[in-house]
Amino acid sequence: MNDNFDLAKIAAALEGLEETIIFKLIDRAQFRHNPTVYEKGRSGFTGTHNQSLFSLRIRFQEKMDAQFGRFCLPEERPFCTRLPASRRDLAIAPTGLALDNPDVVNLGPKILAAYLDLVPLICRHGEDGHYGSSVEHDVYAVQAIARRIHYGSLYVAESKYRSDRKKYEDMMRAHDAAGVLSLLTRREIEERIIARIREKVTMTQARVNRTTRHVVDPDVILTFYRDTIIPLTKEGEVLYLLNRRASEKAVL
Amino acid sequence: MNDNFDLAKIAAALEGLEETIIFKLIDRAQFRHNPTVYEKGRSGFTGTHNQSLFSLRIRFQEKMDAQFGRFCLPEERPFCTRLPASRRDLAIAPTGLALDNPDVVNLGPKILAAYLDLVPLICRHGEDGHYGSSVEHDVYAVQAIARRIHYGSLYVAESKYRSDRKKYEDMMRAHDAAGVLSLLTRREIEERIIARIREKVTMTQARVNRTTRHVVDPDVILTFYRDTIIPLTKEGEVLYLLNRRASEKAVL
Repeated sequence: MNDNFDLAKIAAALEGLEETIIFKLIDRAQFRHNPTVYEKGRSGFTGTHNQSLFSLRIRFQEKMDAQFGRFCLPEERPFCTRLPASRRDLAIAPTGLALDNPDVVNLGPKILAAYLDLVPLICRHGEDGHYGSSVEHDVYAVQAIARRIHYGSLYVAESKYRSDRKKYEDMMRAHDAAGVLSLLTRREIEERIIARIREKVTMTQARVNRTTRHVVDPDVILTFYRDTIIPLTKEGEVLYLLNRRASEKAVL
Repeated sequence: MNDNFDLAKIAAALEGLEETIIFKLIDRAQFRHNPTVYEKGRSGFTGTHNQSLFSLRIRFQEKMDAQFGRFCLPEERPFCTRLPASRRDLAIAPTGLALDNPDVVNLGPKILAAYLDLVPLICRHGEDGHYGSSVEHDVYAVQAIARRIHYGSLYVAESKYRSDRKKYEDMMRAHDAAGVLSLLTRREIEERIIARIREKVTMTQARVNRTTRHVVDPDVILTFYRDTIIPLTKEGEVLYLLNRRASEKAVL
């Protein structure tokens, strides 16, 4: 039996990604904001036109990742387009997701915009010149966030759909996005996640030596979860359901 | 004045890297050992011969990093050879290190061998098929470890040298590696680092949900610090001092 859609298992996987996201954000915050790395035309990179060091780094990273087959997984949606094909011979088991094109659920542009707003809130302001390290950790962080959002979007949505087919199908047929959003929202689960994030960020940094490490305010990461990660995951769930194949035959 | 060699500041930077190494090892440990990724000829990667997925990933990563100028910094020593030139226009301030060739202090092969022995101790055994994620996190971890070792090797050594020139110079002239090693060893500092690592690994995971995250034994990371990171840093310090330019003119 395919247990990809056991909601308890999906929730556990999502919960396990929380530490990964927190670790990557805290590591990024060890460097200053370094706004230069986000400015177009200031990458100092030869042979490029009017790009930022950050956008160059993402493109290089995703070109590498694409060759390693990362985007063959439906929950790994790239930020860039026109990426090379996978060079790996991957044996990916059918997921059971019923979507013709996984890029229908790609929240990359919104994730990037929200992340760039987050950086000055977790980092000390100004410049320390560690541009290479900053964008390297930006990419780690933003990829971990995107994986959480897209994994949740796809698997939570399909799981909820399977547990209540009739109700969802009526709304999906009517293209009732607001109705779907309301049906899949579980306020008490969201509150539990948010409380857990505060606790995890606090505990992770509880005994940090503040002369050697910059400490990130738990409220900032909590707010990012509440106002970005959770809403974008739900937006992805709605996108998935409104684009779900009517056929029972899973295509991914 | 150049304060690159203020030993308290160097120690603080090294201490700050501890969390980064711990975070990256714990994130790697969320995937199983996946020994397949370290086996030659089993990468499933087209157009390659007899390499492992791990060694391919390091090479791709370092080819990217080289173009971003990573290895222009003396403390960033690559694992691979024949890497492309930097495409970034980097304004790197003189470091004050007195070495003709930074690759004299490159402990990459020893770091890799020790890391590959560590992986089965932090991860659950067997395979989960997450090969791409495993090697991605391997590269993050091994790069963070290498940065700590090489940064310590270069800057601690030069700092100690400057604080006791006469004694070091006598030994350096005599190529007395054992004498240099003994002179730069501070057993009580090492003990303090090791105690701190245990505390940090424990605290970082203190409230982890063990059904969603794999917990890494603090003793394993402590042992890796004691038996690998600290000795290789000292080995690098000795290499630095035995190859240090006699001239006062710093060349890096």
